[in-house]
Amino acid sequence: MTEDMIRERVKAELKEKRFRHVEGVVQTADRLARIHGANPEHARLAAWIHDFCRQWPKEKLVQTAKDMNIEEQYFEMPELLHGHIAAGLAPQEFGITDEDVLNAARFHTSGRTNMSLLEKVVYLADAIEPGRKYPAVEEIRKVAEEDLDLALALSFDNTIEYLIQRREPIFPLTVIARNGIWRKVKESRSEQASFDIK
Amino acid sequence: MTEDMIRERVKAELKEKRFRHVEGVVQTADRLARIHGANPEHARLAAWIHDFCRQWPKEKLVQTAKDMNIEEQYFEMPELLHGHIAAGLAPQEFGITDEDVLNAARFHTSGRTNMSLLEKVVYLADAIEPGRKYPAVEEIRKVAEEDLDLALALSFDNTIEYLIQRREPIFPLTVIARNGIWRKVKESRSEQASFDIK
Repeated sequence: MTEDMIRERVKAELKEKRFRHVEGVVQTADRLARIHGANPEHARLAAWIHDFCRQWPKEKLVQTAKDMNIEEQYFEMPELLHGHIAAGLAPQEFGITDEDVLNAARFHTSGRTNMSLLEKVVYLADAIEPGRKYPAVEEIRKVAEEDLDLALALSFDNTIEYLIQRREPIFPLTVIARNGIWRKVKESRSEQASFDIK
Repeated sequence: MTEDMIRERVKAELKEKRFRHVEGVVQTADRLARIHGANPEHARLAAWIHDFCRQWPKEKLVQTAKDMNIEEQYFEMPELLHGHIAAGLAPQEFGITDEDVLNAARFHTSGRTNMSLLEKVVYLADAIEPGRKYPAVEEIRKVAEEDLDLALALSFDNTIEYLIQRREPIFPLTVIARNGIWRKVKESRSEQASFDIK
């Protein structure tokens, strides 16, 4: 399936506002991929499909996820299922089989430890596309141009703080991912510092 | 060992400032236990011993925890080990064998899912004793008099936000405990609401 065909298929599935969000993610993912040396075509593909099942009713998400044998831990927070299901449907629905592209769609809501470059690009594109509005978004947009890991760490923290404010569940895997990326950011800074001293 | 003997043993082990904190936790745990129907003597015992190993160097904590076969996950954040070690030493060191008292000391830093009444009392006493100073402490102190679960949920959130501000690791078990206690608080509120309507 060509990218245009995928675009039309996604457009047919989503309400206008949600589709505009997806277009914003595609545009931002393409841009971040070019800046940071990821594959822009792969980034756009993952972005096009990431919210394909976003408007399904909860019952349909849960039933489909069961049929797909999606890991049990994701059922505790059904808002995480739509990415997993989109990735599961993508081979037959869009002819997309690249595992990195599928994982970028699969983990776009929760993140996970040891994310690939493409996964980071798509996760951040979803968080900072032009339609997003929240207090920290300008800072994260700026950092994302220069330091993908730091932007990711800030974005995880922003998500956790948002969920605390709303008294909604925080996905533990997001916290583990958050701890890991902060550790990586701090380690690379101390390496940089010792390099500067020499 | 009498409570007075335990007090002296703990006093000999800690610097003055840390011992004043422990005294504050004992006083607060006693008070919260009386309000909420926990055993005040057990609450005081757990409070006396909870920071017994708080000033050990990290290497000693890690080595002792290994010797005690403490669960591997706690080694990722060594600041959690001192409670586990205090609980492990307490039978021989203080003659304390009550499992609920030991668990209240063991989990006073991280919390855990399905905490006992005593565990909640000691966790909160540690968070709100008179020496504690942070923006949310007055609110949590007030709530702790009336609703232990809500106070616990607010305290977990406060801890997570503090760790985010400091860019320090967040213990995933604390997040799981936090999600669970918020679910419980929300459920008891909706039960209360439907009760009020009848």
